[in-house]
Amino acid sequence: MPGGATILKPYKVDPSPFYSHVTHSTGNVNIITPAGQIGRKTDGSIPADPVEQIREAFHNLRRCLDSAGARMEDVLRLTYYIVDYDHQNPRHRQPYLDCFKTHRPATTLIPVTKLALPGIIFEVEATAAVPQHVTETVDVVVVGAGLSGLQTAVDLHKTGLKVKVCEARDRVGGKTYSVPAQGSVCDVGAAWINDTNQVRMFNLAQRFGLDLIVQNTKGSIVVDHGIGNCKTHPYGQLLSDADDKARIDEVIRLRDIFEATCQQIDITSPTASGKSVRADLDNITVEDWVRSHNPSSEDALNSLTIGSRAMLGVEPSEISALYFLDYCKSGGGYMLMRSDLKDGGQYLRVAQGTQSFSKGLANELPPDSMALMSPVRRIEQIPGGVRVVSARGVYNASRVVVSVPTPLYKEITFDPPLPADKLELSQSTLLGDYCKSIVFYNSPWWRKHDLCGLAQSCHGPFAVTRDSSVDADNHYSLTCFTAGEPAREWMKLSRKDRDQAVLDQLQKLYSPFAQMEDPIEIVEQIWQVRACVEP
Amino acid sequence: MPGGATILKPYKVDPSPFYSHVTHSTGNVNIITPAGQIGRKTDGSIPADPVEQIREAFHNLRRCLDSAGARMEDVLRLTYYIVDYDHQNPRHRQPYLDCFKTHRPATTLIPVTKLALPGIIFEVEATAAVPQHVTETVDVVVVGAGLSGLQTAVDLHKTGLKVKVCEARDRVGGKTYSVPAQGSVCDVGAAWINDTNQVRMFNLAQRFGLDLIVQNTKGSIVVDHGIGNCKTHPYGQLLSDADDKARIDEVIRLRDIFEATCQQIDITSPTASGKSVRADLDNITVEDWVRSHNPSSEDALNSLTIGSRAMLGVEPSEISALYFLDYCKSGGGYMLMRSDLKDGGQYLRVAQGTQSFSKGLANELPPDSMALMSPVRRIEQIPGGVRVVSARGVYNASRVVVSVPTPLYKEITFDPPLPADKLELSQSTLLGDYCKSIVFYNSPWWRKHDLCGLAQSCHGPFAVTRDSSVDADNHYSLTCFTAGEPAREWMKLSRKDRDQAVLDQLQKLYSPFAQMEDPIEIVEQIWQVRACVEP
Repeated sequence: MPGGATILKPYKVDPSPFYSHVTHSTGNVNIITPAGQIGRKTDGSIPADPVEQIREAFHNLRRCLDSAGARMEDVLRLTYYIVDYDHQNPRHRQPYLDCFKTHRPATTLIPVTKLALPGIIFEVEATAAVPQHVTETVDVVVVGAGLSGLQTAVDLHKTGLKVKVCEARDRVGGKTYSVPAQGSVCDVGAAWINDTNQVRMFNLAQRFGLDLIVQNTKGSIVVDHGIGNCKTHPYGQLLSDADDKARIDEVIRLRDIFEATCQQIDITSPTASGKSVRADLDNITVEDWVRSHNPSSEDALNSLTIGSRAMLGVEPSEISALYFLDYCKSGGGYMLMRSDLKDGGQYLRVAQGTQSFSKGLANELPPDSMALMSPVRRIEQIPGGVRVVSARGVYNASRVVVSVPTPLYKEITFDPPLPADKLELSQSTLLGDYCKSIVFYNSPWWRKHDLCGLAQSCHGPFAVTRDSSVDADNHYSLTCFTAGEPAREWMKLSRKDRDQAVLDQLQKLYSPFAQMEDPIEIVEQIWQVRACVEP
Repeated sequence: MPGGATILKPYKVDPSPFYSHVTHSTGNVNIITPAGQIGRKTDGSIPADPVEQIREAFHNLRRCLDSAGARMEDVLRLTYYIVDYDHQNPRHRQPYLDCFKTHRPATTLIPVTKLALPGIIFEVEATAAVPQHVTETVDVVVVGAGLSGLQTAVDLHKTGLKVKVCEARDRVGGKTYSVPAQGSVCDVGAAWINDTNQVRMFNLAQRFGLDLIVQNTKGSIVVDHGIGNCKTHPYGQLLSDADDKARIDEVIRLRDIFEATCQQIDITSPTASGKSVRADLDNITVEDWVRSHNPSSEDALNSLTIGSRAMLGVEPSEISALYFLDYCKSGGGYMLMRSDLKDGGQYLRVAQGTQSFSKGLANELPPDSMALMSPVRRIEQIPGGVRVVSARGVYNASRVVVSVPTPLYKEITFDPPLPADKLELSQSTLLGDYCKSIVFYNSPWWRKHDLCGLAQSCHGPFAVTRDSSVDADNHYSLTCFTAGEPAREWMKLSRKDRDQAVLDQLQKLYSPFAQMEDPIEIVEQIWQVRACVEP
């Protein structure tokens, strides 16, 4: 899959390793023209540190290109506008190299005295060319190469239909995303399955010959009760023996009501009419639900906060009780969803990474079935079928299956339009904020101190840690889950500060109970609404 | 007809309502790259007022895009270069909004310390993408959707031929252009027909069910004889009874010679060889012709000046006598061309506007016959026919009919080239400068004072006013014709100052004879060489 920008070399000796003298597009292309991008973060703040600001500007440029299905290799030209430019200290070079890797667009650098806003010291303007293939005709277009889209495509292919899967990212798998690290693989997205109520996933694991690892629950978990107050208790117990009996009973009381309510949900019809209790559940948030049961402490809410953050990347004040209950019931119930034991949501990991499921499914399709970096922009009915317009081409088909996260429906123009209800659902649904910091160590030091690696906290960026080691690879890591509101704050920090905040919290949680090792690497993944921006 | 620039939204919240973060082209496009445009007027002057200068730069940008057949909606990207930029007073925004309406290109703003010329405080650079359709094959291409082009196309269509009409503007009609105003319609271009020597137009009016209005000639006309010296006389008389008899006789003498010479012209062969008198007429200007008849005052020249301005938008010193005589003879003669009475050039107006003729003809063609915003750039002979290259696509045809104003031939590349004579004609012919200011009032106050609304003046921007009311719509207006040399000066003013100059002149002409009302709206149309630039 070559990029849209072809590099020419008009000089015998190229005077700079940081740009090309001339590039050009080849064949049919769409020209992508982002506005000049500055280092303003999504919260509106502008980093004072120049390099940080430049890095953010490149990140924003990538975001713009990505929305158009353009890769860095598609960039023909870059223009830099730099305030206080010092040719002996070209601060944009490292962020440029980090963003563009080996690609070298044709580049112009313009020193300027100021830019459009005070405090802005760097602006980058790019022109890209995204190759366009000739219009193809298939039987079915599947939009989205996550697990459901790929399974759909495989099922259709098996019936003999010609399928094209359009995927916005440059890879298959959606939230199954496994990256190499320390000679092993780590899951920066979805990480667990089980072999009982997730039997389809287990069967896929068998089909693709994947090695499954039982989640480590041996030893104690660490619970953070606030300032300087961390306690341990064996995995499976609710709180520490040292905790007040009345407080424990209160958490159990509310947990049991939540679980009982959860088990009443009919996931085939969660808002079934005539069941007033369920309609009520959709009118209050999880937090309000807890408060309506008059808890005597914050413990129960804290426990549900850790649950909603870790499962959905949102706060209990941000989702309806019914939505969360329905989500839990889909996994067997609230207790099972939180469990790392047999039948639980976190029972088995995949040594090769969960993206292996997606890659395995994709491999069962003919080689030309997959159109990566092809976000779909438009779906229109035409006589006898549909016309699907993606960033890299147009497909005519009899049918289209849209398998994208609900909030992304609104980024596709449907003609005729989607039903109003569906559109409203898309417009009023947000993806959660969900981040992983996978901290690698030379050995699983926590196990030596009878800790299983599970920790829970409402007092720091991350809500949960879990042992994510692959012992067979000598891969030992704790995965820290930063989600919901704390994630939004934490994401405003620089990468260095984010890592430090995670290490500080680990220190706070584990140092009272264990001799900790120094980390050897931290792999970070931030899942955002425009999740297709990946480092 | 969607634009060539598609807008994407890579951010959750778009921080600015004035630009898009990323745009892209779709499908086959031609990329249009105007030079940076500054606010220099066509006379070379640079407005001192910053907003006026910015407005002029956008106007020049539109002119550039227009010449390529690009619409504002085709603009992918804008880059502003602004001297003394103040982010708290972004003066370019209102001119931008006025020019781009709802379209939002990707935009970069670069504050600079100076630009290429002193006094220039703003430059705007644009990139546009004009969609290109696949090559079509038709029987005949007609270039230009004015009345003659459309009539040609209708005639060809009726014979069963497949026709494509390529029109530079985004509308049909050429100089027939009718715009809504005050709940009625006003003709900012050609406005009159008659039912005798323009019988084809009259028949079209019947065919399209148009309502015809007899031009108001009831009452007196106002004639401006210079500083503070306006007089009235009944319509049909040549000058006021108060005027000197000898002067009147002198005007009549020259008028009668001009009319007699006019009637001798053979419009099928105006420069027929062997008729030396006519060759002579082509070697002198109208002004020289008048002076060669030894007039005893400027009255006769003034009268012809008003005629040449009002009919052709030029001065008597700018056209050959033969050209003007031939033009007048084509309308039945000089006297008829100036007349608002039966058989005269200004006898009947069209309540629905004269563009209704063009729209009516266009409606008689199949829907896909019209290619708007498609200026033709190249016409070449190919085996068996012609290849016509327009801004939005290519047409192969057996024949092409070119129906554009003579000066525009030179904007088309012909291969093989046009005959030298034809090319010289195009290169040495200029369109006149011709403007209308249509001043709306609540009532036709002039009629109450026994004035017909016709006024003539050589002492102000406009040369003529006429009553252009549509009484049935309660539309009451005076149309002021500013043309020729005074138009060139007047066009240098701001819109506000242009309006004021027209109102001042109306005041001077009418206030001695009538209780004037305050105007309620002024509709302005400036017809220039690149007439396709319309507000």
